[in-house]
Amino acid sequence: MIIIAEKINGFIKRTMEAIEAKDEAYLKELAVKQTAGGASYIDICAGTMPEVERETMEWLINLVQDTVDTPLSIDSSDPQVIVDMLPLAKKPGLVNSISMEAGKAETVFPAIEGTEWKVVALTCDNDGIPDTAEAKFEIGKKIIEQAAEYGIGLDRLFIDPCVTTLATTQNCLVSFIGAMKLLRAAYPGIQFTSGLSNISFGMPYRKAINMQFLALALYEGMDSAIIDPTSSDMQAVLHAVEALLGHDEYCMNYLTAFRNGMFGK
Amino acid sequence: MIIIAEKINGFIKRTMEAIEAKDEAYLKELAVKQTAGGASYIDICAGTMPEVERETMEWLINLVQDTVDTPLSIDSSDPQVIVDMLPLAKKPGLVNSISMEAGKAETVFPAIEGTEWKVVALTCDNDGIPDTAEAKFEIGKKIIEQAAEYGIGLDRLFIDPCVTTLATTQNCLVSFIGAMKLLRAAYPGIQFTSGLSNISFGMPYRKAINMQFLALALYEGMDSAIIDPTSSDMQAVLHAVEALLGHDEYCMNYLTAFRNGMFGK
Repeated sequence: MIIIAEKINGFIKRTMEAIEAKDEAYLKELAVKQTAGGASYIDICAGTMPEVERETMEWLINLVQDTVDTPLSIDSSDPQVIVDMLPLAKKPGLVNSISMEAGKAETVFPAIEGTEWKVVALTCDNDGIPDTAEAKFEIGKKIIEQAAEYGIGLDRLFIDPCVTTLATTQNCLVSFIGAMKLLRAAYPGIQFTSGLSNISFGMPYRKAINMQFLALALYEGMDSAIIDPTSSDMQAVLHAVEALLGHDEYCMNYLTAFRNGMFGK
Repeated sequence: MIIIAEKINGFIKRTMEAIEAKDEAYLKELAVKQTAGGASYIDICAGTMPEVERETMEWLINLVQDTVDTPLSIDSSDPQVIVDMLPLAKKPGLVNSISMEAGKAETVFPAIEGTEWKVVALTCDNDGIPDTAEAKFEIGKKIIEQAAEYGIGLDRLFIDPCVTTLATTQNCLVSFIGAMKLLRAAYPGIQFTSGLSNISFGMPYRKAINMQFLALALYEGMDSAIIDPTSSDMQAVLHAVEALLGHDEYCMNYLTAFRNGMFGK
């Protein structure tokens, strides 16, 4: 299970406050705790005004790299910002994210050609996020084909089939899982990831929706998730589902995680 | 979703104490609360020494029927006790349970022939619970065929594919869901149910395993579950999964259940 740790993100209120206050201790602790929680990548998103995004990203990248060895996930909606940050990374990490929106793939793909950088690719384009599994599949196909032109294979791609908001889109899980199934059938070995929180937007007790979405997506073979690995609820779901799927011999990982206080405290 | 409410069971310590103390108020409250939680059937299990099982069952049946109109689930490991209790019920309910263990089906089926009683049937026999989906399927097939001889159709059967203990049986979810798939393919319209708690036996923080087992079994089309409908954890899973599956238009059931305090308090 590949965990992209989401907490160092300026769109999260507490993190934004720490960024504004230059609270290095808090941000370093986020990096340490998320790594201890099993993060494969530490996401870095400045989430600030465009004019200060670059300097904030640079500061955060250096801060995290001074603290932990975990690879970075460079997270910006501006593909040029992403590309400009890549040389700061001590080792290849993850680009979060591109899509078929004009300007994104064509900016990022050439910059990571011939490197070991991986990339999250959303199945959306200039028309937004499609409603159906088939339309998401068509966009995913274009992404995979365009990546291949730059020598970026399936092992370096994480397709995110863009979960939408359950409150307004009744079939959002169905189209998400349907897109995974269509893409996996056409491209065996393709990897999937997703954030969780969009799905429960506007609903009360969001964690119930987020937890069960994570469980069902994992069950259907999602390889990675963009989550908070310091959340005991998420860790409980991850470990319980892995054990239920028969991936955890004698439940040793579940038992170890429980003993280490990762959930169930 | 058909909920078989499990709390009036003498094998549960607090319920046993109430039975021994003849604490009618407590037991009546369990019936009322479980009905409010959406119970389709109130399970009644004396769980006592055989010599007092009949009188305890009779007392509990009358107590519950004096309190709520919810149909009963008559729960005993002794098929003759079940058969003897049926005439006490004011309306047809559920037999919990039979299996292919000698003496069970052949005692219960003739007694419910030509009635509207439904029956839970476990996919086990004198050799115990099989390890594989295929062996569970073979037992399920025998049950369905034997039931048909008494005019008991698929609409009156709930097959329980016998989940075992995850700590010792790594593939227990896989064989459970595999058996559901094989039986549904051979007998479209067949219904499934299951208790939850066996799966997490011997594990810490059992609710994580129980909740995710419920979620994955529901996702794979389990029609019913033997659960505690007063548990906010179980209600959160039930409502979140139903919404995620697209069965809850505008999430109205989820929102109503939340507002009524069924989960997320």
